[in-house]
Amino acid sequence: MKIPVAVVGATGIAGQQVLAALDGHPYFSIAAVAASERSAGKPFIDAITDKDSGIRRWYVERSEPPGDALGLQVQEAKSLKLDGISLVFAAVESEAARELEPIYAARLPVISTARPHRMDPDVPLVIPGLNLDHLGLVETQKQKRGTRGYIITLPNCTATGLAITLKALDDAYGTEAAMVTTMQGISGAGRDLPALDIVENIIPYIPREEERVTIETRKILGRFARDHVDELDLKVSATCTRAGVIAGHTEAVSVALGKRASVEEVIETFQNFGRDFTKLELPTSPRHMISVHRDPMRPQPRLDRDAQDGMTTSVGRVRHDEVLPHGVKYLLVTHNACMGAGKGAVLVAEYMKHAGYLR
Amino acid sequence: MKIPVAVVGATGIAGQQVLAALDGHPYFSIAAVAASERSAGKPFIDAITDKDSGIRRWYVERSEPPGDALGLQVQEAKSLKLDGISLVFAAVESEAARELEPIYAARLPVISTARPHRMDPDVPLVIPGLNLDHLGLVETQKQKRGTRGYIITLPNCTATGLAITLKALDDAYGTEAAMVTTMQGISGAGRDLPALDIVENIIPYIPREEERVTIETRKILGRFARDHVDELDLKVSATCTRAGVIAGHTEAVSVALGKRASVEEVIETFQNFGRDFTKLELPTSPRHMISVHRDPMRPQPRLDRDAQDGMTTSVGRVRHDEVLPHGVKYLLVTHNACMGAGKGAVLVAEYMKHAGYLR
Amino acid sequence: MKIPVAVVGATGIAGQQVLAALDGHPYFSIAAVAASERSAGKPFIDAITDKDSGIRRWYVERSEPPGDALGLQVQEAKSLKLDGISLVFAAVESEAARELEPIYAARLPVISTARPHRMDPDVPLVIPGLNLDHLGLVETQKQKRGTRGYIITLPNCTATGLAITLKALDDAYGTEAAMVTTMQGISGAGRDLPALDIVENIIPYIPREEERVTIETRKILGRFARDHVDELDLKVSATCTRAGVIAGHTEAVSVALGKRASVEEVIETFQNFGRDFTKLELPTSPRHMISVHRDPMRPQPRLDRDAQDGMTTSVGRVRHDEVLPHGVKYLLVTHNACMGAGKGAVLVAEYMKHAGYLR
Amino acid sequence: MKIPVAVVGATGIAGQQVLAALDGHPYFSIAAVAASERSAGKPFIDAITDKDSGIRRWYVERSEPPGDALGLQVQEAKSLKLDGISLVFAAVESEAARELEPIYAARLPVISTARPHRMDPDVPLVIPGLNLDHLGLVETQKQKRGTRGYIITLPNCTATGLAITLKALDDAYGTEAAMVTTMQGISGAGRDLPALDIVENIIPYIPREEERVTIETRKILGRFARDHVDELDLKVSATCTRAGVIAGHTEAVSVALGKRASVEEVIETFQNFGRDFTKLELPTSPRHMISVHRDPMRPQPRLDRDAQDGMTTSVGRVRHDEVLPHGVKYLLVTHNACMGAGKGAVLVAEYMKHAGYLR
Repeated sequence: MKIPVAVVGATGIAGQQVLAALDGHPYFSIAAVAASERSAGKPFIDAITDKDSGIRRWYVERSEPPGDALGLQVQEAKSLKLDGISLVFAAVESEAARELEPIYAARLPVISTARPHRMDPDVPLVIPGLNLDHLGLVETQKQKRGTRGYIITLPNCTATGLAITLKALDDAYGTEAAMVTTMQGISGAGRDLPALDIVENIIPYIPREEERVTIETRKILGRFARDHVDELDLKVSATCTRAGVIAGHTEAVSVALGKRASVEEVIETFQNFGRDFTKLELPTSPRHMISVHRDPMRPQPRLDRDAQDGMTTSVGRVRHDEVLPHGVKYLLVTHNACMGAGKGAVLVAEYMKHAGYLR
Repeated sequence: MKIPVAVVGATGIAGQQVLAALDGHPYFSIAAVAASERSAGKPFIDAITDKDSGIRRWYVERSEPPGDALGLQVQEAKSLKLDGISLVFAAVESEAARELEPIYAARLPVISTARPHRMDPDVPLVIPGLNLDHLGLVETQKQKRGTRGYIITLPNCTATGLAITLKALDDAYGTEAAMVTTMQGISGAGRDLPALDIVENIIPYIPREEERVTIETRKILGRFARDHVDELDLKVSATCTRAGVIAGHTEAVSVALGKRASVEEVIETFQNFGRDFTKLELPTSPRHMISVHRDPMRPQPRLDRDAQDGMTTSVGRVRHDEVLPHGVKYLLVTHNACMGAGKGAVLVAEYMKHAGYLR
Repeated sequence: MKIPVAVVGATGIAGQQVLAALDGHPYFSIAAVAASERSAGKPFIDAITDKDSGIRRWYVERSEPPGDALGLQVQEAKSLKLDGISLVFAAVESEAARELEPIYAARLPVISTARPHRMDPDVPLVIPGLNLDHLGLVETQKQKRGTRGYIITLPNCTATGLAITLKALDDAYGTEAAMVTTMQGISGAGRDLPALDIVENIIPYIPREEERVTIETRKILGRFARDHVDELDLKVSATCTRAGVIAGHTEAVSVALGKRASVEEVIETFQNFGRDFTKLELPTSPRHMISVHRDPMRPQPRLDRDAQDGMTTSVGRVRHDEVLPHGVKYLLVTHNACMGAGKGAVLVAEYMKHAGYLR
Repeated sequence: MKIPVAVVGATGIAGQQVLAALDGHPYFSIAAVAASERSAGKPFIDAITDKDSGIRRWYVERSEPPGDALGLQVQEAKSLKLDGISLVFAAVESEAARELEPIYAARLPVISTARPHRMDPDVPLVIPGLNLDHLGLVETQKQKRGTRGYIITLPNCTATGLAITLKALDDAYGTEAAMVTTMQGISGAGRDLPALDIVENIIPYIPREEERVTIETRKILGRFARDHVDELDLKVSATCTRAGVIAGHTEAVSVALGKRASVEEVIETFQNFGRDFTKLELPTSPRHMISVHRDPMRPQPRLDRDAQDGMTTSVGRVRHDEVLPHGVKYLLVTHNACMGAGKGAVLVAEYMKHAGYLR
């Protein structure tokens, strides 16, 4: 008996990433799909098919819409029927998320890829394999909000790769400060940039991205203490740029560690990070949270973003930083549409099933 | 009466940039061109024209080979006749530069775009408008080497934009440390990368580039003291990457200043930098050493690399850095083939004429 | 005394191309600028400057807004004052052009870069150096419409390069049919494509482009006969695609000639085409209507689109076509924002002044 | 009991595509790998691993080297031991292929991706699902050459997609002439272009490509007649260009049919083509030889090259051609590294096993 789930935002990119990750899933069955009023009432297959041209709007490369979902009737998100559903994946735009997620969370667990509730003190902001102990916050949330369900959020995709590597370092050596310059792909929020902006160019600014990376990273790396998360007191300086790369964010990171570590020690720390999680061998889990390259020409976004189905963070060029105290620096490539988006949400759900949150 | 100059490396990219900058020049006339043995003895026009296909190998976009040069007979670089020449532009590969430049410098001033002598203690490493007082080193050099001429060098193109902005800050506030992540265009050393590497990708490593940026920046920003340059004691951390951009290097820079400065003060500092130099209105000079953008979407390499004929450094997104003490950060775009290459060499020569080094 | 002109659409791309081409023009002075209601009443400099960010919306690379225009007050296009104006450049979107151009043409000559009136039987559709005899249509137009002024149009940019080469061939050998596959740059209509569409990709369809190329080419190549144009009876088959190129359309063309011609004859025909026009040496004229490359690696859009300030059509790889009767084939590169847009409009005006249409 | 095969050229791109297609194959086991002298004698894993950097040279994206192959000792291609081998895949450069293939073919069947023997009259040039009856030539070849084995070749990748669609049309309506303009990706022969050539550009010429497409297409579409192939008397006109696309060739094709057909008939013809072959459901077979898109925005190389694991030819924009008699035109996208390369070679082998050529 699989656990019946609903996917809200099923006609959008993030929702379709969830759907793709749920296709043929061993634990979960897609019991309901929901979207905005415009699509409501149609079979899912019709909702994603342009009537005139026959064009299917399915955004996940190298995948097809799950057969289970195609015949479902799309429900209007505002009035999604929650009976018979055990879990809601909410993959909608910010405005909609702010309104809809509390409605679902009144009764059910909600895993959200959207931003509005990420920084609520009683809402866990989690990355699988990094801080799933923060899920403990949901008890506080339920009490405080008087709900039967709760909201769990995933971070901004740019914060995801950064936080994974910082957590490894923080656990081993402590961290005092982090500086990051990103060269981000366009398949997420950048997909609507005008073509003329991106060809043979670098765009030096992504509105609000730097602030989000900073505050979300501190919360993710924070310490769960019974009923709240103490954010990590980490100074973060971020510069976020857009490059002409389809998918995959490249990030150049420098970190001031709490104590000195050799390059080899840092590499080993990265390689060993998250073993307790990866050895659970959950269906959507990467084999390694962090994959370290010793070839200085790697990682490259085009070659490495799909490593381990896009779920690992690829790191290379680990070396000392000349400026920061106990400084190390490295580059990383993270797939913006995987761990930090729909597939990450499904991996959270897999862990919740494993840990007894769902039944 | 124009000053007769020789251009060595006239069949290569850097040499042709010098030639293009000398076309119709008010101070200088192209009196000789030299290249390797293969081209020697041919009229310049034949040396840059493929006999079978008629293809002309001229690498400077939006320009033609100077008419004066086309009829000159290409001399072999090793045996360039120096009689009647007042100045040599040496724009050749490292190996050749190491051998050839001392030969010319025995008798004449040599301005070099190549690397081998940049870090020699008695060789000035100059950027026009920044540290032309370092030219004072040539007296030491002549004495020490027993030559009538001398070698002057220009830095690596990536160091150029960085050093210009750091110098402005160092003069005004002092500087303790600098961190830079570059996204470099391919028109210089990157032009021979395989096509497959650069399309829809970022290459995380450029061999030896980070070391050069570090050591050259310290020398450029150093203080000339009678007979030597005291390098600036500045910690520099560089990460150099290659992006799919034709020309123009984008650099994300964070600097620890010697004392606190507001963003507006820093912007003003940048805008006022180098006025004593730019007001000379030398023929190849930018109008402003640094051009500051207030639009956060600028500078972009494709839109801004050609500003002021590629000779200005475009800066944007000036803001505080959260990690470094008295930290400021910004992005810059510098044209890799202009101030830090052939055109910069010609601008050095213009200044030398102005300052009485040449007659 | 320069001829006073008005530029309508001065805040848009095409209008700014006209303005840039008029900067410091020897024949024309910018006496009025007009735009939509939103900009009306403001000084032009304010109309193109974002108040909050200070960002200037000027779209013509490597140029600045003409100083003459900056202080002019922007008029509302619908109520442009025509007193004291001798010529109107109308560079607006289709909807606006349909409404506005007849208003101006009631009193004045109008040169339009827009589509709505191109195929009107009494409206000349001209390319400078190709079919300026079609300007004779304006007498018919004035009589028929009872106006003192008239409308003159320029074609779609894709048709421009094609028509120029076909006209050379048609004059020399006759033409029976033409087949063209285009790989078009994005700086015109493609600038609003989503970034994700164009990176590392080819888009196989440009709505309505193929039809326009076909019908406009036949009219351009038609024969002016006293009071009408007999369209050329030429079969045209077009496939128009979009490539990740900033500017410049590349077109692979095959033509069935009316009689056999050798490759050398065709090359010579191209090289000699339009001499009567280019020898007028009008200010915006190319030196050669067609520039022929013998290097098979040329023309390339990035290297050749700016040849002769973007006003020449670069042709290469001229050879026999194996399928079409008396077939020849070649590739061409044409700058989409030059002859087929604002600069072409100014060149038409220059010819009109030369030929006595304006005073 | 699987059929033991040897892969020659195992350290190169084409050979590794064969290896990847053989990984876990139900019919074949990798019994030997061979390469040039430099790699000979090493375990395969060492031969593809750089000793200093540890970098593994494996060129097939989203795949790993087959575990079976990693432990094999690389043999020198010239002295490959043929005992115990039933079939040789030869995936080497032209020079090597000319010399090596006859050596293997003296005893064994050889399937080659290289060019030298493609046009030999007694050598089949085959595409699976199109002309596998040409395999009948091997009897002639064996007799004529006095060998126990024989050579079978696959065509140039650009010819592959073209020939597949032309064959469908020729079978249904006859074909008189074909015109094709290609926009080819760089992952094959284009991978060594300089980076500077391909960014934001189109290269209008690929040496020798047009001739190969022409002659190979005629042979592929020819009719096997007992002991020879009568080439199809088809006029072909090709223009081959290179675009900044990683993989996937886009081709704009116009065809003069032998008789009139409606667009719907042509679409149906494409959709039904090759059913007898695809219904064999061979392991590497596409589900459909040709996949027809009705969305005019498709096919696009980035979105469609991987359809059906890269083994189908995606066609779109089917419409009438205005110039050619009974003309139809369309665009196609074909993955250059699949049907027309290593995976196609494995599919030929699968068919040979099915048809009794191998045991």
